[in-house]
Amino acid sequence: MTIIALPETRPPHNLLVEPSVRHALEEDMGRAGDITTDLIIAPETRVTARMAARKDGTIAGLIAAECAFRLVDPALSFKVETPDGSKAANGQTLATVEGSARAILTAERVALNFTGHLSGVATTTRALVDAVAGTNARIVCTRKTTPGLRVLEKYAVRCGGGFNHRFGLDDAVLIKDNHLAAAGGIKPAIERVRAGLGHMAKIELEVDTLAQLEEALSLGVDTILLDNMAPADMKRAVALSKGRAVLEASGNVTIATVRAIAETGVDYISSGAITHSAPNFDIGLDF
Amino acid sequence: MTIIALPETRPPHNLLVEPSVRHALEEDMGRAGDITTDLIIAPETRVTARMAARKDGTIAGLIAAECAFRLVDPALSFKVETPDGSKAANGQTLATVEGSARAILTAERVALNFTGHLSGVATTTRALVDAVAGTNARIVCTRKTTPGLRVLEKYAVRCGGGFNHRFGLDDAVLIKDNHLAAAGGIKPAIERVRAGLGHMAKIELEVDTLAQLEEALSLGVDTILLDNMAPADMKRAVALSKGRAVLEASGNVTIATVRAIAETGVDYISSGAITHSAPNFDIGLDF
Amino acid sequence: MTIIALPETRPPHNLLVEPSVRHALEEDMGRAGDITTDLIIAPETRVTARMAARKDGTIAGLIAAECAFRLVDPALSFKVETPDGSKAANGQTLATVEGSARAILTAERVALNFTGHLSGVATTTRALVDAVAGTNARIVCTRKTTPGLRVLEKYAVRCGGGFNHRFGLDDAVLIKDNHLAAAGGIKPAIERVRAGLGHMAKIELEVDTLAQLEEALSLGVDTILLDNMAPADMKRAVALSKGRAVLEASGNVTIATVRAIAETGVDYISSGAITHSAPNFDIGLDF
Amino acid sequence: MTIIALPETRPPHNLLVEPSVRHALEEDMGRAGDITTDLIIAPETRVTARMAARKDGTIAGLIAAECAFRLVDPALSFKVETPDGSKAANGQTLATVEGSARAILTAERVALNFTGHLSGVATTTRALVDAVAGTNARIVCTRKTTPGLRVLEKYAVRCGGGFNHRFGLDDAVLIKDNHLAAAGGIKPAIERVRAGLGHMAKIELEVDTLAQLEEALSLGVDTILLDNMAPADMKRAVALSKGRAVLEASGNVTIATVRAIAETGVDYISSGAITHSAPNFDIGLDF
Amino acid sequence: MTIIALPETRPPHNLLVEPSVRHALEEDMGRAGDITTDLIIAPETRVTARMAARKDGTIAGLIAAECAFRLVDPALSFKVETPDGSKAANGQTLATVEGSARAILTAERVALNFTGHLSGVATTTRALVDAVAGTNARIVCTRKTTPGLRVLEKYAVRCGGGFNHRFGLDDAVLIKDNHLAAAGGIKPAIERVRAGLGHMAKIELEVDTLAQLEEALSLGVDTILLDNMAPADMKRAVALSKGRAVLEASGNVTIATVRAIAETGVDYISSGAITHSAPNFDIGLDF
Amino acid sequence: MTIIALPETRPPHNLLVEPSVRHALEEDMGRAGDITTDLIIAPETRVTARMAARKDGTIAGLIAAECAFRLVDPALSFKVETPDGSKAANGQTLATVEGSARAILTAERVALNFTGHLSGVATTTRALVDAVAGTNARIVCTRKTTPGLRVLEKYAVRCGGGFNHRFGLDDAVLIKDNHLAAAGGIKPAIERVRAGLGHMAKIELEVDTLAQLEEALSLGVDTILLDNMAPADMKRAVALSKGRAVLEASGNVTIATVRAIAETGVDYISSGAITHSAPNFDIGLDF
Repeated sequence: MTIIALPETRPPHNLLVEPSVRHALEEDMGRAGDITTDLIIAPETRVTARMAARKDGTIAGLIAAECAFRLVDPALSFKVETPDGSKAANGQTLATVEGSARAILTAERVALNFTGHLSGVATTTRALVDAVAGTNARIVCTRKTTPGLRVLEKYAVRCGGGFNHRFGLDDAVLIKDNHLAAAGGIKPAIERVRAGLGHMAKIELEVDTLAQLEEALSLGVDTILLDNMAPADMKRAVALSKGRAVLEASGNVTIATVRAIAETGVDYISSGAITHSAPNFDIGLDF
Repeated sequence: MTIIALPETRPPHNLLVEPSVRHALEEDMGRAGDITTDLIIAPETRVTARMAARKDGTIAGLIAAECAFRLVDPALSFKVETPDGSKAANGQTLATVEGSARAILTAERVALNFTGHLSGVATTTRALVDAVAGTNARIVCTRKTTPGLRVLEKYAVRCGGGFNHRFGLDDAVLIKDNHLAAAGGIKPAIERVRAGLGHMAKIELEVDTLAQLEEALSLGVDTILLDNMAPADMKRAVALSKGRAVLEASGNVTIATVRAIAETGVDYISSGAITHSAPNFDIGLDF
Repeated sequence: MTIIALPETRPPHNLLVEPSVRHALEEDMGRAGDITTDLIIAPETRVTARMAARKDGTIAGLIAAECAFRLVDPALSFKVETPDGSKAANGQTLATVEGSARAILTAERVALNFTGHLSGVATTTRALVDAVAGTNARIVCTRKTTPGLRVLEKYAVRCGGGFNHRFGLDDAVLIKDNHLAAAGGIKPAIERVRAGLGHMAKIELEVDTLAQLEEALSLGVDTILLDNMAPADMKRAVALSKGRAVLEASGNVTIATVRAIAETGVDYISSGAITHSAPNFDIGLDF
Repeated sequence: MTIIALPETRPPHNLLVEPSVRHALEEDMGRAGDITTDLIIAPETRVTARMAARKDGTIAGLIAAECAFRLVDPALSFKVETPDGSKAANGQTLATVEGSARAILTAERVALNFTGHLSGVATTTRALVDAVAGTNARIVCTRKTTPGLRVLEKYAVRCGGGFNHRFGLDDAVLIKDNHLAAAGGIKPAIERVRAGLGHMAKIELEVDTLAQLEEALSLGVDTILLDNMAPADMKRAVALSKGRAVLEASGNVTIATVRAIAETGVDYISSGAITHSAPNFDIGLDF
Repeated sequence: MTIIALPETRPPHNLLVEPSVRHALEEDMGRAGDITTDLIIAPETRVTARMAARKDGTIAGLIAAECAFRLVDPALSFKVETPDGSKAANGQTLATVEGSARAILTAERVALNFTGHLSGVATTTRALVDAVAGTNARIVCTRKTTPGLRVLEKYAVRCGGGFNHRFGLDDAVLIKDNHLAAAGGIKPAIERVRAGLGHMAKIELEVDTLAQLEEALSLGVDTILLDNMAPADMKRAVALSKGRAVLEASGNVTIATVRAIAETGVDYISSGAITHSAPNFDIGLDF
Repeated sequence: MTIIALPETRPPHNLLVEPSVRHALEEDMGRAGDITTDLIIAPETRVTARMAARKDGTIAGLIAAECAFRLVDPALSFKVETPDGSKAANGQTLATVEGSARAILTAERVALNFTGHLSGVATTTRALVDAVAGTNARIVCTRKTTPGLRVLEKYAVRCGGGFNHRFGLDDAVLIKDNHLAAAGGIKPAIERVRAGLGHMAKIELEVDTLAQLEEALSLGVDTILLDNMAPADMKRAVALSKGRAVLEASGNVTIATVRAIAETGVDYISSGAITHSAPNFDIGLDF
């Protein structure tokens, strides 16, 4: 597959994308396939179709669309006009696909379901990223992703200018209140982690209060998650930490609040909504 | 698995649900599993946790939550308080889960991702269903679903009081403009379909104009999709059809417009937004 | 893959066929592969082989044969002479395959197992179809298919000129005696179905008597299955229904009885035997 | 799973059976499952159902039926009355299954498809086995099996009193005419095999003439396949070989010819028809 | 599954282990299963078997052995005497398994293959860990693992007292010479990484010289890999870094050299040999 | 795939290799892929890399290396210089791979893990094979293989000049002491086997004493396994058997003992160590 995304978005390798796309095609084709198209369209009919944005936004997921078209018919030609990670205006052509009409119609819905969903994630992310422009804060996603789509949604976040938090339970430590309760406090929790954790995984600790923050700073964790703090407290947290830990803000992050949060000086602002509540971005396929 | 949903929602069989849930757990656990929990929480620690609504809405997906908890630890006890398909008020307990703290923490995010997403679909559907209460119109979903989640999202639509359209390309015929263009008109398209289709699959035809509607009615299709028609035209379509075909309205269906559409007398109103743009329904898990 | 079947047979998409063929190859190759061939035949040996009918019949399954040869060696050339859906005479060439002798020998048995089985289904179907020629009745299959081969056997039925009934439990409703017993009668059963079923799925009801038929007709089901009725009763059923429902006859359908059944005027005649009891159609592969 | 077959039939381990049964259930349930049953039958309805033979024959496949019922509902109780490998008379109860009516109806067709198909194989095998009773010949199957069902069909052959030939291309060497042609004769072919083959795999050679037989005997292969020889020639082959190799007859093996073949003194008689052309054995499930 | 490992070894969740064990069983059982056992041992025979060490070492993999026995027969009782992570003396009982003789014999080889291999890894690791006892150095594994067994081998390393490096290409950044060459130096390489990497992934840089080390230290990477440095240079590296980065030594790590390396003051010593060249640890299963 | 191994090694078909390689790549790429390479190396950078031996030995596994590179990027060119089955000297080029630097770096570790492991097996096997040169004994592997890698390790044994024993539990009978105990002796055990086994599977019996050997010889088994016998006893066994059975020696087979065992006149010498304890063969990939 040719590169159809901006380099900085780092599209996931096709080996990580194709299984999801194949699964979605099987889900849509069921047992009998596209019976409408097979009954009506002659196998030799060829067309050119155009994927176009039906509103303004940031594009993600053309890699999945291409994969869908190619799985249905490797002979289809797919040409990207607006690569993943770009902004598109309403009406702008995103890609053209040319070849068997049957194949294009059979793959159409899956291609659009991926691109519409992922461009929705990218567009929602981009709005937050643009809102904090000029501050030091980076927008970052969470594990609140749609089941089965984590790799692609994390990619869509990058397409929207965001950064990725943990990809799963296993690539970094994130200590939350339930862990602290079970361990009997911040210090014993971190000691247990340090006793067993390898040197290549980071430790993040969620805190609710500035007192907890101070304890965390004194114990040298990599990242501190300021959970649902008021911006004024975040500002104090930034001042307290003096760069000794990366600070991540979470909770009540909306397009209305994000700028104020960013201006407190926190390093990262995490949002579940950019993945779990992004509305579909409307894309059409026209012959 | 015990029945944890209202009978009329017809929960999909566990054989159709478990693969998605297992896949989501594998996606989240990665290679090393829940390293935070495994490092901090002792294997023998037991807790009771409570899933609770954090706003008002309609619940769907507890079947997937239960499946997640059981896959991680078959010994967990999962008790439903507010079955799938019920309305829940902010703060209301949806279910309790009791057993190994490690297991509950490991499964938590996957359980919440499913339930939050599917309850979002159910709640969004329910809003449309409630808006058309008292009319004859039924709210129906589309194939614009999140890749990989069609079975569960269709179920969430039922939990919200909606009905299901086609599950895929293969269980009914839906003739759209591109098919008509390729076939050279409505009549040849339907003739081709009739020549090959078995007797147990229905035929739907998408029309843009009342002229097309009349032709479709004369050819005896089962369902006619009125695509993006103004309510006034829909009303005329209802009058013209005199029950000779089921009428389905689509296009520009929102909570603001749906009542007026329903009052035209159409039988079904289909919406892609209830599956592809439903915001996550916030659910918490507290120990 | 090029189209290697008559258009009206609508070959299933390769995405729906390849997994079965790959599975059959793995089943035959086991762990060590074709040890006889690998030990004896040099890798560079090339041959041309010819698949030929060893009796008269109707061909189905060359799409699976091609898939088998291509999976074992994408460089093999496979040329169809007698496409799926055609009649072949004893001795007639069905296809030629050219390339690595190792690859052809390794794939041979799987290719023949598919084509022999599916051509058996097509030939058996064709015999019934030919027997009812000139009547209005269409021959239709059932869910009595060989486990794992439903998609391909349904295709073979089409290759034999037959039509497809339900592909599974989920694409139409078929109410049988056990359902009626549980529901307490025809009317409550149909009411329950109507209360929950979407508008794009048909309803069929199995009846044993003309009294049940009349009730079914009055309730407006799409299709009525006349189960094991005598032809005289079928004739009465046709007269009674006056086109208000599609009538399907089943039970005791053989090459000896099918014409008489068709002449009663029923619309469809269903047979499990065309899929579950079709003898293999003998095909040879000669170098 | 409890043992539900006669010891001498050696039922395949559940790990080798369950994937096929699960696949068949998924194939039948599709995306929406058994919509008829789910719409009509209440979840709490319990029944007892009885699988019964509808003609005389030899039973095989109850292990798959049990597996199907248990996968759909682990709480179902399945009691075998006529174990795999037994003969059953028309009307005889094979097994009873008790529990959720929904579960039983959902699994019914898959359970019957397996048992009907495999009992067909066992019954067809048994007819040949009974026909050669009193001779030394054993009936043996081939690799001409239904794609995907080799393990179960080989088991059904054992249930019918037959023996198993190779399970695949990899567990023994079978040298045919094409191999001889490529190698330049019997001797070089066998030398190539001996140079590379391990000591735990047997070598069989297919011969068409007595001259080939003599060469094969002189080279010491384990088994010689007499392909399409007349019984008189087989008798000569038996005399010639004097026990120096196992002799297997193949070609034109029918219920009419098999006794005469057996009486020539050959050790094994192989038949593809017992697996690829066995008609379904009719089994009913009654509530 | 009950916990059968010491808490500090953090056994991987059964969901991460079972697929490998099931695959290994399928690989060993092939199509026909354990024909020797099925032919000879009666289904009702019950035995008690004992897994015992046949030399001194550190145990790992009983979780996989238990999983194998349970997959073959869920009714087997498996009792651990020497949990994963413990040292065992020659002859010491590791576990007992009781139940069906058939099941135990069928699972035996797979259970022993896992436990022998993983105990080999644990024992080899333990030797290095013991050799550096009293220093600050921790022994750590690499990605040089046996294909398909990474999760289990990383666990075996923990059982041997070692720590885990990256589980894959995706959970931390490790910059090697080829990356530096392509980027044009250390600084541009790290800048590119920082521009795109999320805040929860660590950065490691491989250096060959002390000059490179100084540049790396000035750029603030998390970990510096001293590749194939002489101990004297490592000592200088430790002095230079003054704790500003974690130091990891690699190259020429053997039981003979490891102590000297540890005494240079490096934090971690990584070894591929503990996973890729650990000899099997001999374990027997006796009835 | 082109043939990249010596003909006599009979490389397993790609359909049998690719799933393992794909699994290993997924294991290494995880969810986010090769983040280091993706962040640093431009997509268009092209390189030529060279796989080279870092010690003397026998090569196996280039087929898996090629498969890994091709799966990551089908456009990579892979050229073998030292085919599987050849001996290589320290520093000798094994293969070159040319194309996208990203792809080569992403696949590198998996390619090396396979080739290093399998060349280790081949080299270890070769040492035993060379040690018995001039005798009649052949070196043969066992089922003591690394879980998941049986097909490839058996191939590596062939690359090292060894022969293959059973590939699994199902392709030959091997009667051990536990079977004898359960059956009540050698004779009843073999009678049970003969009553049910097909004619194409061999029978091997493990014996500890010459008395058992005589009984086994009198019963006509194909192969007799002399388990842990002293060479003097093996010599007597050879004399006793007079070619009536193939004799296989096992137990305490090392490079130091193997020649003496071979000189007793046994036919096969089996070793688990060549697969389960072969140290990795060091191979580098240089740009």
